[in-house]
Amino acid sequence: MATEKVASWVVNLSYANLPPEVIQAAVSSFYNWVGCAIGGATHPTTTTAYEALTPFFGQPTSTLLGHKGARTDASHAALINGIASHVHDYDDTHLATIIHPTGPVASALLAQSEALGDVKGEDFILALVAGIEAECKLGMGVWPKHYDIGWHITSTVGSIGAAIAVGKLMKLQRTPMQHAISIAATQVTGLREMFGTDTKSFHVGRAAQNGLMAAVLAARGYTGSLQAIEAPRGWARVVSVSNDVDGEVGGLGQQWEIARNAFKPFPCGIVVHPVIDGCIQLHREMVAEGVTAADIERAHVRVHPLVLELTGKKTPQDGLQAKFSVYHGGAIGLVLGKAGPAQYEDNVVLSTEIVTVRDKITATADKGLGADETEITLTLKNGKTLTRNVQHAIGSVEVPMTTAQLEEKFVDQVSLVLGADGAQRASKACWALQGSESVTDLAKGI
Amino acid sequence: MATEKVASWVVNLSYANLPPEVIQAAVSSFYNWVGCAIGGATHPTTTTAYEALTPFFGQPTSTLLGHKGARTDASHAALINGIASHVHDYDDTHLATIIHPTGPVASALLAQSEALGDVKGEDFILALVAGIEAECKLGMGVWPKHYDIGWHITSTVGSIGAAIAVGKLMKLQRTPMQHAISIAATQVTGLREMFGTDTKSFHVGRAAQNGLMAAVLAARGYTGSLQAIEAPRGWARVVSVSNDVDGEVGGLGQQWEIARNAFKPFPCGIVVHPVIDGCIQLHREMVAEGVTAADIERAHVRVHPLVLELTGKKTPQDGLQAKFSVYHGGAIGLVLGKAGPAQYEDNVVLSTEIVTVRDKITATADKGLGADETEITLTLKNGKTLTRNVQHAIGSVEVPMTTAQLEEKFVDQVSLVLGADGAQRASKACWALQGSESVTDLAKGI
Repeated sequence: MATEKVASWVVNLSYANLPPEVIQAAVSSFYNWVGCAIGGATHPTTTTAYEALTPFFGQPTSTLLGHKGARTDASHAALINGIASHVHDYDDTHLATIIHPTGPVASALLAQSEALGDVKGEDFILALVAGIEAECKLGMGVWPKHYDIGWHITSTVGSIGAAIAVGKLMKLQRTPMQHAISIAATQVTGLREMFGTDTKSFHVGRAAQNGLMAAVLAARGYTGSLQAIEAPRGWARVVSVSNDVDGEVGGLGQQWEIARNAFKPFPCGIVVHPVIDGCIQLHREMVAEGVTAADIERAHVRVHPLVLELTGKKTPQDGLQAKFSVYHGGAIGLVLGKAGPAQYEDNVVLSTEIVTVRDKITATADKGLGADETEITLTLKNGKTLTRNVQHAIGSVEVPMTTAQLEEKFVDQVSLVLGADGAQRASKACWALQGSESVTDLAKGI
Repeated sequence: MATEKVASWVVNLSYANLPPEVIQAAVSSFYNWVGCAIGGATHPTTTTAYEALTPFFGQPTSTLLGHKGARTDASHAALINGIASHVHDYDDTHLATIIHPTGPVASALLAQSEALGDVKGEDFILALVAGIEAECKLGMGVWPKHYDIGWHITSTVGSIGAAIAVGKLMKLQRTPMQHAISIAATQVTGLREMFGTDTKSFHVGRAAQNGLMAAVLAARGYTGSLQAIEAPRGWARVVSVSNDVDGEVGGLGQQWEIARNAFKPFPCGIVVHPVIDGCIQLHREMVAEGVTAADIERAHVRVHPLVLELTGKKTPQDGLQAKFSVYHGGAIGLVLGKAGPAQYEDNVVLSTEIVTVRDKITATADKGLGADETEITLTLKNGKTLTRNVQHAIGSVEVPMTTAQLEEKFVDQVSLVLGADGAQRASKACWALQGSESVTDLAKGI
């Protein structure tokens, strides 16, 4: 029954059904996604795909984010924006399943909205919510076995979420919506074996394409199975060894999953986030006290053992290595009070200013601390000590990013691609989603 | 090691390595594929996909078979030709795995050959063989558990076969070939749950697209895992619960799988084939003896029990039902001496001429007979009886279709779409593959 249940729920969902916090979460998710997609637009993984696939490009209906107004057909725009939005591993996370939910769904949705034209912000939000809710519930239905087996859950359920979102945008009725789900479900894209390669972010873009194509075919009457998810040889049983998809989809609209979507404040492994958070707080205290990095004698952090296991690199030599260094994370927090993409560029990682402080940081593992907890002791040359205890890092469910922090993240990323003015303009355009009369016009302003 | 082994074998394979029977099998496989693709071009499953996806079409580099010279970008041509080639379930079968091997591989290969231009027939054949061999060996490596779980093996391995073929065409070296395999392997398309719907043949087209995209990305340096197939969380372990891919790929070039590729002589379930085969033989005997269908008193067939279980429909009402009727199969054999797509059209199924004879046929199950065996007793009104014992139906490994029979199948299918002259022209063009200086020119003649 899961396929029919999901389709019915999605078809019956109206904008009036959405609680204000769900609308807000949708706008934030969209905003964060655009920032990441523009931020990732110049990454070689994105530009290689762009160049390789140019010979296949169709009518330029849909924006390639971060590419100076360049457009292509909706399918390729979905692919390339999807890749870009995930390539820095800096997007969003549904913490219950570690799905990055917005990438596949929004990439398909923006591209097809522009291709269709005349899509209002409210309709876009409604479709985005429908796709993300279904995607997360289906993911919860097969989690964790599905992931353990080796599937990249973001893209495997992302294909289905994208189909549902585009199907909702195209106003599919229940039966064609079931077919759209089915055509997406049969395209199971994403092996975890690809992590660490270009193909990881390709999964997100391809999921967007899979879903878009599924909805477009179903809208013309193309058929799949009406029991694609729950059949004896349906999606859930083929891709997982245990599942409760029926139970999970029964909770659609009761617990809104998009409200549990978290945004990464820093472009590095999540285990480093508490240390960065605490060090940024200490940086502010230092500024208030009139002391600078030159006044630091030493710093010590106590962290959960996992932090040193995953990010114990003491002398990172470039930006990528720095993402796995709690010492670099601490240093940029203390010295610069920021940890955006610019603070992970190679020249910053190797700068005397950062290396000097980095080498003054020591760390010990403490099993008594939570994974998102840290205790930092900063000793100044004048003998004074400053301490910070972070119990939940910024970006956790307990301490979500504020709108101002989300905006800082957006602007920091986007400025590197579009410049400071471009970033401000894009930020303003994206925040205007809810009241937008035309998503096509909105996209032109990005 | 499987990924590297496959890539090395493929990269080192040269046209001079191909035994003559392998080249002949490749030409026949291509020929049969083109016939099926043109024959399926006007099927609603194909035309619906064509119409739905037109807004995404790119530069018209590649032929849409059976569509009067229409062209689109290579990716969409691969998709639509792939759908068309499988939609009648009339294509080819690698009997050891029930993979339909040519659809995904040739659909990608022809489309990309035309996009690249200047591809010789020999290079096309070499790439086709490389893709099909690797595809079948990987399929054998995960068979039968992979299929039992619920995967449509034709498309799941077809994506990889298509990537290898296009990669070979584009002269990828070993490492990029491994990446191409990887990018294809991560797109696991095809649930058996979709059988009986439009999505079944979509799988074949999508596999062609998946592989094409994988090779095109890898050619530009896009990376996946170098151990995509055999890694602990690689393709073979994620999509099957047992596998021997290493062992199977070790046999590449020793046992040529394309030489074991069989072509379906009749567009219906394979269990009916012995009865049709025997009845066509009896038709010829009747003609030789100067008797006609009007002289038939009754006919009796003894068959394996599975035949009646699967195809026991006594009074089929349309072409689709007729595919599941051993009685219709027998009647068209006896009356018309043919069982091509034209003999499965609704008006033939309901014609007095066929229904009269169909109702004179009785059948009994006999466990002592093989699944591809039958004994037929035809009693004429003059009291004479003619009998036929078919031990292996035409199209089996033991009794492969002759070139003349393959040509009859081609012409019968293609005439329905291109007319008789068009079918002859296309047939001639396809047989000229081996010596062709330009596959692009060859495709223009189809």
